[in-house]
Amino acid sequence: MLVVPLIERKREGGALTPEEWSALVAGFTAGRIPDYQMSALLMAVMWRGLERQELAALTDAMIASGQRLTFEGWSMPRVDKHSTGGVGDKVSLVLAPLVAACGVAVPMMSGRGLGHTGGTLDKLEAIPGFRTDLSLAEAKSQLQRLGVVMIGQTPEIAPADKRLYALRDVTSTVAAIPLISASIMSKKLAEGLTGLVLDVKHGSGAFLPETERGLELARTMIALGEDRGCPTVALLTAMDRPLGRACGNALETEEAILALRGEGPEDLMEVTYALGVEMLLAGKIESSAAKARQRLENALSSGLAAEKFEQVIEAQGGNPKVVEDASTLPQAQAVEVFAAPDTGVVTRVEPRVLGRAIVAMGGGRTRVEDAVDASVGFVITVKPGDKVLAGEPIASVFARDPAGVELAFEALRQAIVIDERLTQRPLPLVSHRVTRDGVEALTAPEKKGGRGASPSARKR
Amino acid sequence: MLVVPLIERKREGGALTPEEWSALVAGFTAGRIPDYQMSALLMAVMWRGLERQELAALTDAMIASGQRLTFEGWSMPRVDKHSTGGVGDKVSLVLAPLVAACGVAVPMMSGRGLGHTGGTLDKLEAIPGFRTDLSLAEAKSQLQRLGVVMIGQTPEIAPADKRLYALRDVTSTVAAIPLISASIMSKKLAEGLTGLVLDVKHGSGAFLPETERGLELARTMIALGEDRGCPTVALLTAMDRPLGRACGNALETEEAILALRGEGPEDLMEVTYALGVEMLLAGKIESSAAKARQRLENALSSGLAAEKFEQVIEAQGGNPKVVEDASTLPQAQAVEVFAAPDTGVVTRVEPRVLGRAIVAMGGGRTRVEDAVDASVGFVITVKPGDKVLAGEPIASVFARDPAGVELAFEALRQAIVIDERLTQRPLPLVSHRVTRDGVEALTAPEKKGGRGASPSARKR
Repeated sequence: MLVVPLIERKREGGALTPEEWSALVAGFTAGRIPDYQMSALLMAVMWRGLERQELAALTDAMIASGQRLTFEGWSMPRVDKHSTGGVGDKVSLVLAPLVAACGVAVPMMSGRGLGHTGGTLDKLEAIPGFRTDLSLAEAKSQLQRLGVVMIGQTPEIAPADKRLYALRDVTSTVAAIPLISASIMSKKLAEGLTGLVLDVKHGSGAFLPETERGLELARTMIALGEDRGCPTVALLTAMDRPLGRACGNALETEEAILALRGEGPEDLMEVTYALGVEMLLAGKIESSAAKARQRLENALSSGLAAEKFEQVIEAQGGNPKVVEDASTLPQAQAVEVFAAPDTGVVTRVEPRVLGRAIVAMGGGRTRVEDAVDASVGFVITVKPGDKVLAGEPIASVFARDPAGVELAFEALRQAIVIDERLTQRPLPLVSHRVTRDGVEALTAPEKKGGRGASPSARKR
Repeated sequence: MLVVPLIERKREGGALTPEEWSALVAGFTAGRIPDYQMSALLMAVMWRGLERQELAALTDAMIASGQRLTFEGWSMPRVDKHSTGGVGDKVSLVLAPLVAACGVAVPMMSGRGLGHTGGTLDKLEAIPGFRTDLSLAEAKSQLQRLGVVMIGQTPEIAPADKRLYALRDVTSTVAAIPLISASIMSKKLAEGLTGLVLDVKHGSGAFLPETERGLELARTMIALGEDRGCPTVALLTAMDRPLGRACGNALETEEAILALRGEGPEDLMEVTYALGVEMLLAGKIESSAAKARQRLENALSSGLAAEKFEQVIEAQGGNPKVVEDASTLPQAQAVEVFAAPDTGVVTRVEPRVLGRAIVAMGGGRTRVEDAVDASVGFVITVKPGDKVLAGEPIASVFARDPAGVELAFEALRQAIVIDERLTQRPLPLVSHRVTRDGVEALTAPEKKGGRGASPSARKR
């Protein structure tokens, strides 16, 4: 096939046919189309975008490059959740066992942290022995047995996406909404889902900070899902400050376990419940949001959700005792309390600064192949709007050594802004609900996590 | 060096520093920066453009990748001409010996035909034995001895441009004005010129058909030349119909020889003289256009120009007898006359259709490595505005076989449009003069080539 005329057409703002996209993806995956032509085409896509039909064809071709999970004769609803990522976002660890405990199967395929954002796989692997690299057959078997499995992208799922993503990563062609959408949805649609819920972050710590861009991403992914027979709904949630109190892999896993035991911070629980309600509705096991919420709260308070997480941990090679005793998680060597430098109102807690500091402290990645130290991070007990007194403890830092503590303190001094009054309203925790029918702005008043001591601080 | 942040900055519309461009070109030429990153960056440049300082840095880096001709102690002015290419454009073959005969040295470095446009090297190589692959040392020696040399890009000149161009060719990143300008000017500025004249084509057969784009290309190249100490001037000339009557390598070489003997078609002579005047002015050997024109006409009518071409042919391995007897040029096997299908006025002679037909007949290239058959082509004896009678001979075709003749006839039926009246004014032959000081629109009435029999038709 002649690739140059296709690059030229896209460069000039034209559209490629579904057959052309299919041949491009197949040729690229097979190594017949060289990287340098694909990267030029990807940059032209960043420039000119993709029409709806092109995006569908690209996604289909990426799905077709690998296997699809099928569940013939198994009637249980299967719903996954995908988050576009942020700082302190441990929702998946709470939500997957919680929703599974309510009777909706959750085949959760997650990613690793990269740049300033964390990743569910890294948080799960903070539990000693926990395996996320199950084969597709193992994952399917566990899903049918326990109703939930939490794994990484397997080699069988959308290998074209994996190859394309690696190229995008080194050619600055990641941040295009159609390419992000095709990448996410090709993996999700290969899971054989009956429904999908998207948590699209906006705010300064999100991959796409602007609300409008978040909405566009949501609409694009919903169109892709719905057109392919997978009912898809999205919530826009706040990432202008960290979610919950803990930031850093082991600290977040600990906070997720506390949440499953009914002791989670309020903001984390609000977002978790909002997404859980959508998952139960998508799974068609409840007919109203109120009933779905009640069912989720019952599964949590009865201990069923925590028990489900123990089952997952045991099935995937970890020690389930961690749910009762978090001290088996990696512990940081150097722990220090950070005090408010001024009296006033907290106006910002900047997630990007904190996420980058975790990377610098050894707890994140700048390259896919980097190893991470799960023990490092922050527990921040204030939220925008809180009043603080100079000298009052407002955060704890968990580092490998005194140099890490110093780095963490500097990050906290930058990230936590204290002023005379709140200069900017924080984003509502859940601000928009997007479906195939359109965007609904949610006017519920923002609730924030209660102050109280952090889980780790309490324990120590 | 980290390339991804540079691609990202350009993608977002920012500028790279001169040091960054220099490191990019050096790293790419040395193979340290992979093709896939460079092609993504090139596509981002097509999208966002280059600032003047960036373009200068890119051009300088390309020059610095190879050698520069130097002529210490040699006071003769050295002026080259570059054409952006078209169909029937054999000006270089007439102009180089003509200007050299007037006392300005012409170190002419040309290219091959690609796509629908012809190339000077292919036309010269239609002369049996003619070598265009002189070494830089041979070229310099011949230039100082004869005052003119006609060669291709040597490996020593701007190797980075050669490597970049090869990548642009397969990634649809050729048609960006800054990249075209850097490519052309890096080679020209390495020739050690004291002046440069650009022939920028516009009209449907030009690489950039729109006049405004042609002017932009001219201004960009002039800025590059002037900033680097090489006085540069451009003429915008018509490529909405072929220049002269012959299209095809050997046929054009024959027409160029006729022109040097004083028998060239009027349009070819007008463009040749206009460019020649600029070259003599740039070489500072005449102080007015009128005097320069007179000097050129004298060099032609005295036979000095034709004699200079004989010297070039002999020095570069060809048989100089071709200037007196064109029958030593490759001859087509199948020659047929094409008659006007209708009575009326010729409204268009479409160069692109003719150029593509020559490629299909075996006389051009779709890939750089293709061989060409110099004998094939057209001689078209009508111009837009000419009245014709149905059945009257208006062209001859030169092909390898009857299938080639059929193909050529079909192209002529498409290319030559006959209507009741002229619906669109042809472009003036020379419409604009562009210098560092700005654009001057030339209002001289268009002159067109006389009808008469074609050189080949006359001979056969």
